[in-house]
Amino acid sequence: MNMRNIKLIISYRGTHYCGWQIQPNGVTIQAKIIQGIRELTGETVNLNGSGRTDAGVHAVGQCANFHTSSTIPADKFFRALNTRLPADIRVISSEECDLAFHSRFNAKGKSYVYKIYENPVASPFVFDLAFHVQRKLDWKAMKEAAGYLIGEHDFKAFMASGSAVKTTIRTIEEISFEKNGELREITFKGNGFLYNMVRIMVGTLYEVGYHRLEPQDITTILKSNDRARAGITAPAQGLYLNKVYY
Amino acid sequence: MNMRNIKLIISYRGTHYCGWQIQPNGVTIQAKIIQGIRELTGETVNLNGSGRTDAGVHAVGQCANFHTSSTIPADKFFRALNTRLPADIRVISSEECDLAFHSRFNAKGKSYVYKIYENPVASPFVFDLAFHVQRKLDWKAMKEAAGYLIGEHDFKAFMASGSAVKTTIRTIEEISFEKNGELREITFKGNGFLYNMVRIMVGTLYEVGYHRLEPQDITTILKSNDRARAGITAPAQGLYLNKVYY
Repeated sequence: MNMRNIKLIISYRGTHYCGWQIQPNGVTIQAKIIQGIRELTGETVNLNGSGRTDAGVHAVGQCANFHTSSTIPADKFFRALNTRLPADIRVISSEECDLAFHSRFNAKGKSYVYKIYENPVASPFVFDLAFHVQRKLDWKAMKEAAGYLIGEHDFKAFMASGSAVKTTIRTIEEISFEKNGELREITFKGNGFLYNMVRIMVGTLYEVGYHRLEPQDITTILKSNDRARAGITAPAQGLYLNKVYY
Repeated sequence: MNMRNIKLIISYRGTHYCGWQIQPNGVTIQAKIIQGIRELTGETVNLNGSGRTDAGVHAVGQCANFHTSSTIPADKFFRALNTRLPADIRVISSEECDLAFHSRFNAKGKSYVYKIYENPVASPFVFDLAFHVQRKLDWKAMKEAAGYLIGEHDFKAFMASGSAVKTTIRTIEEISFEKNGELREITFKGNGFLYNMVRIMVGTLYEVGYHRLEPQDITTILKSNDRARAGITAPAQGLYLNKVYY
């Protein structure tokens, strides 16, 4: 039996799932994909995702890998698998990779996109796909504030309290802003992200956008290592895991 | 009791509804709004929509009006009403209008947008918001074909068979094409549309896009008055009632 390692790029709308990671109660994206692979190959595989995403969080380019002895050609896997998956989960591509490749351990960095719908009235089309803000945000101040987050910092103040990690030092390489109609998109690229870090960074930029914080306050917040000093945790539905870098 | 006529502009995601019009079985958008108005005012009103939309069809600017003796200021109505409506239905604005105004009878024209997602793999974000086509369409040929639909014609061949109307003559003022990332949008503006007319026009342009019909065939199809000569009825999820003109 010839064992192969298959790498998948996966896109999903997280709205109706209890997040990525398989769990005893509640439907998860990982569980749906494992079930699809089982229906296709008869095997119950270990599907390694690049990382978890929370309930309601979306992905454009989640990466996951699994070992299989199936003879389905690697590049045909994604189409076959899509026939066994619900419409809100789509595998974009599949390819064979080195047997030692691991989606999580080999990840060198990630990018996330956070979408904000800025309009006095909510939209029936994006209420589950973006964070709705009714009043105009000060985007100039937010961009200035974002500048203080770039670089290597201890992001302890931007991590959900109670998480356990070896180090809270991370490097943010880039934060960029784009406008798509009434959707504002903030892209974060970095070598790794702490639990809820993107959502707390967005929540803090949002407070800057409403002038409840000054752009320079970011420096003080970073130095404080105190979660209570940073802003709100922006809601899950605005967050998209965009790309995993290897 | 001072009777007033209130005009609403409504946006909705049609995915989870059996269309606009109230019916004994199945949840409809009209029924949800009537229920919201009842909770707000205690009145069970007649809500006149500008026209029906089918199950799964969306609206950006549906128009509807109703008479009420409620003292809620007209321009505050939409916000109050939104608190009584599900997130996939949003009232965009409300205003007082002439007592004689009727959303359907006074409509002078409408525009519809049809969205096509052109990509080898379906998207988890738009499977219910656009028509997914896997292969590239010939947009040049489709634009040429659209030109033959513009003007005053007998659109009987582009009407779902079995519909009863006084006349099947309509005027299409404009058909325009736009590209938004991987979404293609076709906008139709006209003085009125027959049942399923936009979806059949799109289905026919789609056949042109796959070279199963030639652009000039549109003329023959129009002249034939034969529904069987036109293309497929494009799926409901791509269609948006865009604007009603008065």
